[in-house]
Amino acid sequence: MLPIRDSVRQTPGYIPGEQPQTQDFVKLNTNENPYPPPARIFQTLQAELDKVRLYPDPVSTQLRQAAAQVFGVNINQVLAGNGSDDILNIALRTFVNPGETVAFLDLTYSLYRTIAAVHGAEIKTFPLGEKFELTGPLICPEAKLIFLASPNAPIGSHLNCEYLAQTCAQNPGMVLIDEAYIDFSDENHWDFLTQFSNVIISRTLSKSYSLAGMRVGFGISSPAVIQEMDKVRDSYNLDRLAQSLGTAALQATDDFKPIWQKIRQTRQFLIQTLTDLDFQVLPSDANFVLASPQWIEAAQLYEQLKVRKVLVRYFNQPRITNYVRITIGTEAETQALLTAIAEIKQSF
Amino acid sequence: MLPIRDSVRQTPGYIPGEQPQTQDFVKLNTNENPYPPPARIFQTLQAELDKVRLYPDPVSTQLRQAAAQVFGVNINQVLAGNGSDDILNIALRTFVNPGETVAFLDLTYSLYRTIAAVHGAEIKTFPLGEKFELTGPLICPEAKLIFLASPNAPIGSHLNCEYLAQTCAQNPGMVLIDEAYIDFSDENHWDFLTQFSNVIISRTLSKSYSLAGMRVGFGISSPAVIQEMDKVRDSYNLDRLAQSLGTAALQATDDFKPIWQKIRQTRQFLIQTLTDLDFQVLPSDANFVLASPQWIEAAQLYEQLKVRKVLVRYFNQPRITNYVRITIGTEAETQALLTAIAEIKQSF
Repeated sequence: MLPIRDSVRQTPGYIPGEQPQTQDFVKLNTNENPYPPPARIFQTLQAELDKVRLYPDPVSTQLRQAAAQVFGVNINQVLAGNGSDDILNIALRTFVNPGETVAFLDLTYSLYRTIAAVHGAEIKTFPLGEKFELTGPLICPEAKLIFLASPNAPIGSHLNCEYLAQTCAQNPGMVLIDEAYIDFSDENHWDFLTQFSNVIISRTLSKSYSLAGMRVGFGISSPAVIQEMDKVRDSYNLDRLAQSLGTAALQATDDFKPIWQKIRQTRQFLIQTLTDLDFQVLPSDANFVLASPQWIEAAQLYEQLKVRKVLVRYFNQPRITNYVRITIGTEAETQALLTAIAEIKQSF
Repeated sequence: MLPIRDSVRQTPGYIPGEQPQTQDFVKLNTNENPYPPPARIFQTLQAELDKVRLYPDPVSTQLRQAAAQVFGVNINQVLAGNGSDDILNIALRTFVNPGETVAFLDLTYSLYRTIAAVHGAEIKTFPLGEKFELTGPLICPEAKLIFLASPNAPIGSHLNCEYLAQTCAQNPGMVLIDEAYIDFSDENHWDFLTQFSNVIISRTLSKSYSLAGMRVGFGISSPAVIQEMDKVRDSYNLDRLAQSLGTAALQATDDFKPIWQKIRQTRQFLIQTLTDLDFQVLPSDANFVLASPQWIEAAQLYEQLKVRKVLVRYFNQPRITNYVRITIGTEAETQALLTAIAEIKQSF
């Protein structure tokens, strides 16, 4: 009998969204940016390719410097991760001993549960309200770490900022605010960093910066917190090309802003049109919407869209069994989706 | 007081070798391959850059397929890691609960101690013999995981294969054989995989495949072991470009073989010349040698070489305080090193 940890043996493992390696799908299932990054972010790549036999900078200095500048913090407040999933895992392993408690909402990003379970943490979940909203501050004194995504996934909308602040103020444990989708909204939580010593913010370049393929994320907190998390980080966790493209993308932030604006416009159009097509659509501050068709089972809609080469995300999960999550695509992709939906609706 | 885990708070963290980001050093300190990879491995990169906004294949199918082919195993026996450091960490988190025991040699790759300490594992070390050799099988019945590097770092030579086999046979825990340097030697331990169910082999493309900058490593074991380790792996742990370059490099294995041969020739020349320059040099099956100057303190030699823009590795560590570890460079780099040493020696 091999010595597999109980926490690992008993965990089914995380199931990521489908990633078909063919190109013939309208792919609206994993919240990627439908627009490529500006060409100029590739300009420094060749110099890195010439040095590919050499180890990268172990502490991602330039990347963190670029992030610090965009985020308006000091470089010693920034930890670079191999995607923000790396940051979530590092936080867990920095603050939570197996057997101690991790808290998060039900519903939220499903990876929180997977990594907490693998780690052997006690899991405590707090239900969202009727409209998938935070009904008050999340209070869990025994939690060493609380994961909160705002905008929340797979819901789409921000958590109430006042309740969030009370959550940070009233819990002794760390609060990680996952801002994966923040650039598609008007809010952020930077001021929490100065108000509360127990806050970590995580960011990713996967969505707003069109770099899902490169795995670049950040944890931002006080220097004291970052110093401890840095010990848990793999010492060479970002390769040369990820550091280079991440740095260049952050430096091109102004080029991305019109893209974020465009996605928000398309989101508005999609929400309106889906409503017209008899969907109940939740408000969204992200690059996706969670929508419930009132005339077909969501699972069936997912299947029928897939037949028509349109991929959306279906979660077979309590409370959202009759919803699909749809990534905001280009205008053409959104039109293709809507045409397919209209077709399916007509056949009913 | 923030809830930092004791295991993290008490660990100083891993200190990687110096990675100067300037190009003016003869860099012989972190065992990189002195030769660039063949140009053809970059041919498929543009197609990946065109898809950089999309998530990579979460399970690195093509990369694992290429690795399986080179290693002569099935794809379900291969786990892809963000460098082999990722594999070591995954093994630890799959098999060892905090408080349980991890065993390794003293001396060996210093990362084993760091990651075990951060994880909160009990650490048990076993001393090497007079000549830095394995004096018998490592027997540690309470260890859930035993890390053994062969060739061993920072020593350079293989561990006795018969003792290694007995270690696998006589311990109930997992044995991870770290083969980071294997391609510079004539041996390997593939037959252990069929003989023992508790063996994991780790490999890296950082040294022999000239891809230190890309962070690609592998764990190879039985499908049952790999399946459990896969749950602990970050679901998107390798970015698109790392997968692409890693796949292409493995497919170009035949192009790398003359490079490995060349490095072995230079190693032979370096060992001979250092011996002539009154160093005691340990035998090496790797792309580095551990050598002790008999006429100067090793720490002083390290400093004097650094002044002359030659970087070697000095470990301020018991038993090897009078050794430096020197990576096998190109012929020109090796000559530059030897010239610098001769100069320093003359001034004595």
